[in-house]
Order: sequence, then structure tokens, then C-alpha cells
Amino acid sequence: MTLDILKNRRTVRQYERKDIPEQLLEELLETACRASNTGNMQTYSVVITRTTEIKKKLAPIHFNQPMIMEAPVVLTFCADYNRFIKWCKLRHAEPGYDNFQSFFSASIDALLVAQQFCTAAEIKGLGICYLGTTTYNTDQIIQALDLPKYVIPVATVTVGYPAAQTEQVERLPLEAIIHQERYHDYTSEDIDRLYREKEALPANQGFVAENGKETLAQVFTDIRYTRAGNEQSSKVLLKAIKDQGFTF
Amino acid sequence: MTLDILKNRRTVRQYERKDIPEQLLEELLETACRASNTGNMQTYSVVITRTTEIKKKLAPIHFNQPMIMEAPVVLTFCADYNRFIKWCKLRHAEPGYDNFQSFFSASIDALLVAQQFCTAAEIKGLGICYLGTTTYNTDQIIQALDLPKYVIPVATVTVGYPAAQTEQVERLPLEAIIHQERYHDYTSEDIDRLYREKEALPANQGFVAENGKETLAQVFTDIRYTRAGNEQSSKVLLKAIKDQGFTF
Repeated sequence: MTLDILKNRRTVRQYERKDIPEQLLEELLETACRASNTGNMQTYSVVITRTTEIKKKLAPIHFNQPMIMEAPVVLTFCADYNRFIKWCKLRHAEPGYDNFQSFFSASIDALLVAQQFCTAAEIKGLGICYLGTTTYNTDQIIQALDLPKYVIPVATVTVGYPAAQTEQVERLPLEAIIHQERYHDYTSEDIDRLYREKEALPANQGFVAENGKETLAQVFTDIRYTRAGNEQSSKVLLKAIKDQGFTF
Repeated sequence: MTLDILKNRRTVRQYERKDIPEQLLEELLETACRASNTGNMQTYSVVITRTTEIKKKLAPIHFNQPMIMEAPVVLTFCADYNRFIKWCKLRHAEPGYDNFQSFFSASIDALLVAQQFCTAAEIKGLGICYLGTTTYNTDQIIQALDLPKYVIPVATVTVGYPAAQTEQVERLPLEAIIHQERYHDYTSEDIDRLYREKEALPANQGFVAENGKETLAQVFTDIRYTRAGNEQSSKVLLKAIKDQGFTF
């Protein structure tokens, strides 16, 4: 088996009007659950959204990104200690999972399952898109999906049959990502060299021009991922984690 | 292409004494970087450990799990805003990424890359093991690998050629993991039904007997993942995140 599907993958934001058979979706989710997890506790859950009713609730929470309404299936992957804690209590065991470590390890496990689901789906010819907005309006997702204590949504994935072939977007050279033996911090010359190709791409130069900015980095800091936005959503996310029972 | 490799995968803890060619490792890491990430900011780094010198530093931090010394390659996947922030500053952009949201979204991205790496490695006949200890002694890993401000290790993976075929471990039935449209909380009867098969497995009954416990759940709460351990490592992890510059 080759790595071609993984190498050639790209995010798919436009889907055919065609449902995903229930049996295929279950096969993909079962396959995903084969990903590694902490202590085989499986501290995650997946909420499957197919109905217009729930999609309409989720859409504004995800800033009305059209994939929510257009994809046949929306999956919300959640860190979930609720099931495990309930099991402990029913088995005369005293759970100690109402803390940050437990929240974070459950998040790790949920994310590995999410990614394994995406790969399985792509192998089967489906296309996926992660919605980064899941950690922005966490409190509203909790409410829309009736998530109980000890359950936090950490990733939302839309999935369906691709309607259009899109261009693969760039990545930094591998040299930018890897460090041999120890972290070797970047000099200004390193940064210039590693970002040169990205900054020279016509699409990225277009973003700079369209937004009336001087540099691509300013498009990120001033428009896409601003301090004000990050600080606001940090507050919401931290409060949601605590309100759901993970105290720190 | 079928899902067989993903379905049949299992964690590999014993490796042949055989190196992973540098070119293959780079191909796997490049493939992994094709996983989705937030805004294509690629806020992650991977530290590659091959030398005995660094393995000896990492081994005790990971509670001397033998995979660290025995695997040809140990990878530490890190949430990394350092590179991106340096780029912003060099490009006259004001980064607002010293907060919890940024830490968490960088962690998500690092974990998706980690999982995609693992799948790519398994497709190529390698075996992997995640070390859950990465979030326990985060401060010591930061020191051992010289991780600068805005860099936090979130997953450690050992990788090598499998030396032994191991049994695939159980998973809960898919019914335990998925929720249609809304989260449907578990009744006591649900929990009994969903955990019955797991609790009946000879291996799991063996753990209960060996540890002199009444139930499998008590093996988790009293021995494997205790309140005291979780609370201690929560403190260490939270302090490390803040000390690395993500304030909240």
C-alpha cells in the first residue's frame, strides 16, 4: 500500500447532494476507534448530525460556514469522561478525573480518533473539512448537542462526497517543522528562508493585497486570528472546561 | 484501497534492532504534515530522537518505559507558536497568540499530525506506540529537548520495525461511543450492557485478580490513573503551559 492518498489529500468544502450510507459511516467510526488511546479508557464520544434541525443550530455557532448545511454528515468529536466516570461509580470505584490532566488526555484521545476517522473516510473516497470554530463557541455547542458534565467538544468535521477537486495548499518545507535531537531555535535568516516560498505564492500575495496589508503575517494577526478574538475565545473555552466539571 | 491496515492495527512496543532510513522518516513526516491544520499556520514541531544520549534523558521522564531505549526513533510532537510568532514579529505584525486558545489550537494541530504520522508509518510496515506520559512530566521534557517559549510537547511516539505480533486489544461496542443528533446520556443499564464484554475478558479479569481489586474500574481509579497522580500532573502541566508563555 502506498502513501498516495495521504500525500494527495486536501480539505473538501463542497459536497455532492448524496448521503453517506449508515453502514459505511459506522464502519469508518469503528475503524477510527482503532486509533491509540490512553489506557484503553476510550474517553471520547462522537455526536453524529444529519438532520436539518440540528445543523441549523450548529451553523451559526460555526459562523455559518456553509459546509455545516451542505455536508450530509457533521461529526462533533468530544473529550468524554462522563461515560467512564459513570462506570467507575457503578463499580464501587472512586474516579479522580475532574481535573485538567483528565480533560487534556481525553482531548488527545478524541483528536486521534477524529484524525483516524478522516483518513479512513478519505481512503473510502469521501472528503472532509475540520471546523476550527469548535473551540471558539464551545459553550454553545455544549448546549446545542446536550453535552453533559465531563464532555467537551474538541473537533468538528464535515464529511461527504467531494463535489469539486480543489488545489492542494502549500506547506512549509519539512526543515521548518523538524528538529534533530534538540529544538534548534530559528534565527531571523532561518525564518526568512523557511517562509520565502509561502510568501511568494500568488494566492498569499493576493490575500495581502485584498486586505490592504503590508505582509502576509499581518493578514493573520490583524484579520484571521486576532488578539481580541483569541482572548475572548480563551475565556469562553476555559469557562466551558471548568463548567463541565474539570476544575483547576 | 481497503481499510484493513487501519482496522487491524495494534500498538507495537517491541522493535527489531534495525534503523529507520532517514529518507523514509522524512517521507512519513512530510506525509503527516498534509493533515489538516488551523489556518495553515502549522503551529507544530517534531523533535526527532535517535541518539542514546537524548534517549537516556527522556527514558526516566517517561517512567523508564523500555520503548524509549529500544525503538530506533522517538518523536516528540509539540504545539509550537514560537516559529509563527517569530515570523509575525519579523514581518511587522503584532501576534496575539500568548493565550489558552492558541495553546489549545496548536495542540490540536500537533496531535492531528502525530496521528497522521502513525498511520503513514503503519502503512509502510512500521509499528508505533504513544507514550501517555508526555503530559505528566511536561516540564522535564521541555528541559531535555530545549523547547523554547511557546512550545509544549503534547505527544511522544516510539517507532520501529515490529519485533513481535501482539494481540489486538478490545474496544467498547461502537454504540458506546456514538450519539445520534444529540448526546443521549447513559443509564445504569446502558453502562452495564456496554461494559459487559470488556469486563468479562480473561485479560481484564486477570488485572482485577492480580491487583486484589473487586472491579476492573478500581484497577483504573486505584492503580493506573489515580486522583493523586492526575492532580499532581495537572499542576505540572498547567504550570508548564503558563511558564512557556501561554498566560491565563
